[in-house]
Amino acid sequence: MSISSPRPIRRFSRSGIEEVEDLLPTEEPVEFRLQGVPIAVLMRTPGHDRELARGFALTEGIILNPTELAEVQALAGVEGSGRYELVLAEGISIDPERFRRNLYSTSSCGVCGKASIDAVRVASPPLPSGPVVSVGFLQELMEEMASLQTGFADTGGLHAAAAFTPEGELLGVREDVGRHNAMDKLVGRLAARRWPLGEVVVTVSGRVSFELVQKAAVAGVSVLAGVSAASSLAVDLADELGMTVVGFVRPGGSNLYTHPHRLTSDEL
Amino acid sequence: MSISSPRPIRRFSRSGIEEVEDLLPTEEPVEFRLQGVPIAVLMRTPGHDRELARGFALTEGIILNPTELAEVQALAGVEGSGRYELVLAEGISIDPERFRRNLYSTSSCGVCGKASIDAVRVASPPLPSGPVVSVGFLQELMEEMASLQTGFADTGGLHAAAAFTPEGELLGVREDVGRHNAMDKLVGRLAARRWPLGEVVVTVSGRVSFELVQKAAVAGVSVLAGVSAASSLAVDLADELGMTVVGFVRPGGSNLYTHPHRLTSDEL
Repeated sequence: MSISSPRPIRRFSRSGIEEVEDLLPTEEPVEFRLQGVPIAVLMRTPGHDRELARGFALTEGIILNPTELAEVQALAGVEGSGRYELVLAEGISIDPERFRRNLYSTSSCGVCGKASIDAVRVASPPLPSGPVVSVGFLQELMEEMASLQTGFADTGGLHAAAAFTPEGELLGVREDVGRHNAMDKLVGRLAARRWPLGEVVVTVSGRVSFELVQKAAVAGVSVLAGVSAASSLAVDLADELGMTVVGFVRPGGSNLYTHPHRLTSDEL
Repeated sequence: MSISSPRPIRRFSRSGIEEVEDLLPTEEPVEFRLQGVPIAVLMRTPGHDRELARGFALTEGIILNPTELAEVQALAGVEGSGRYELVLAEGISIDPERFRRNLYSTSSCGVCGKASIDAVRVASPPLPSGPVVSVGFLQELMEEMASLQTGFADTGGLHAAAAFTPEGELLGVREDVGRHNAMDKLVGRLAARRWPLGEVVVTVSGRVSFELVQKAAVAGVSVLAGVSAASSLAVDLADELGMTVVGFVRPGGSNLYTHPHRLTSDEL
């Protein structure tokens, strides 16, 4: 299975109707198991499944450190089967029932944004005070990410997340039908080398939601830039945790939502 | 709480840096309970919470018919508290443990697109053979929906779903930070009047994912049009269930993915 799937379509345009083969963004379920117990089924774009597994396990707090995960094993031995066992490192034990993926992290202390924020705060490392970057630099990174979104170029329907050093070196870029999956794949890739991620800039192709800020925060990311708007709760969480969030990063301007000390102006 | 939330931001532009108050799309958790047991916590944009509850309960198969739900009751009697009890009609009983929101519908029969499609097929009514509409008509509906997206106009960060009769009469439009929530609010609104929805056209502001086709199918919607791409599994599901899915509905052209008998060409 690939990042894009050919399907026959009819294209209606001013010049008439054509029967063509189009490339659609591939969406398929994947299941992660812990000690044989299914803990999550995600709709994702196939590819980089092990990175997705590692990133998901980290950003959802299933493991606290990449070293707690020994291996991500394809079940039945078939690559791309869509089923993986998260094999824990020796001496690590986790009750899988605690982590059947559900959304109840907030329900014990009341459903409100404040409770959601408190839950993430507990799980997040202190963020680095840097890096300090300029608005124009973020726009350049966003353009570089766009140039690397080959799946989007083919299908027009995939999100992306990318990470860069403060000097602008690309650390990784990942695409997925789900924005949160693109982030998890990216985190899973980078986590193999260092944890928490330290002074990096992460760019995302769409809106900055609560969930994206949460995942970035758990990974220790201090600068998050998006092409589109940030939600109210995403901004409240970033504010609370000390993360710099910039939205609408586009030629000519950008909106800075939180923690201005990491962002400088420059010629746009 | 409102659909948009004011927050102080710094706007960087060619003319310099301004401190302004911006409107962000509001994102807050909501909890739904069944017989006192929490069955779902969703991140949503406040407003139309009861429609969201009804639509979610229907499209996720928690109730099979709107009449099974007597009332959506705000807990602690406080409107907007973010906690609601789904009060079932007399004589209806459901085991809430079955419906704690999780993603395991597919796991009993193997993780693959086919299994996901089979699960939805069981839950969906047969779709109506009509309506028959033209590509230009869909583009007009999309423009009308865009003109009604007041939350998007304010924030640049909200998705929308709208429903129209085959004659182009607007039946409803709803916005939310989550595309699936916008669809559930819309379905919840329309379900109060008729179920399944019958010959309607539903338009959505973004990508057509598996989950959106699933929700539309359970509601009996036969024509679904999106501004952006459809995913491979969304198209496979629509193909299997007999739904007409059209993507990239934009001035000048559109892509028809499935079941062409409901779509005619016309002057674009």
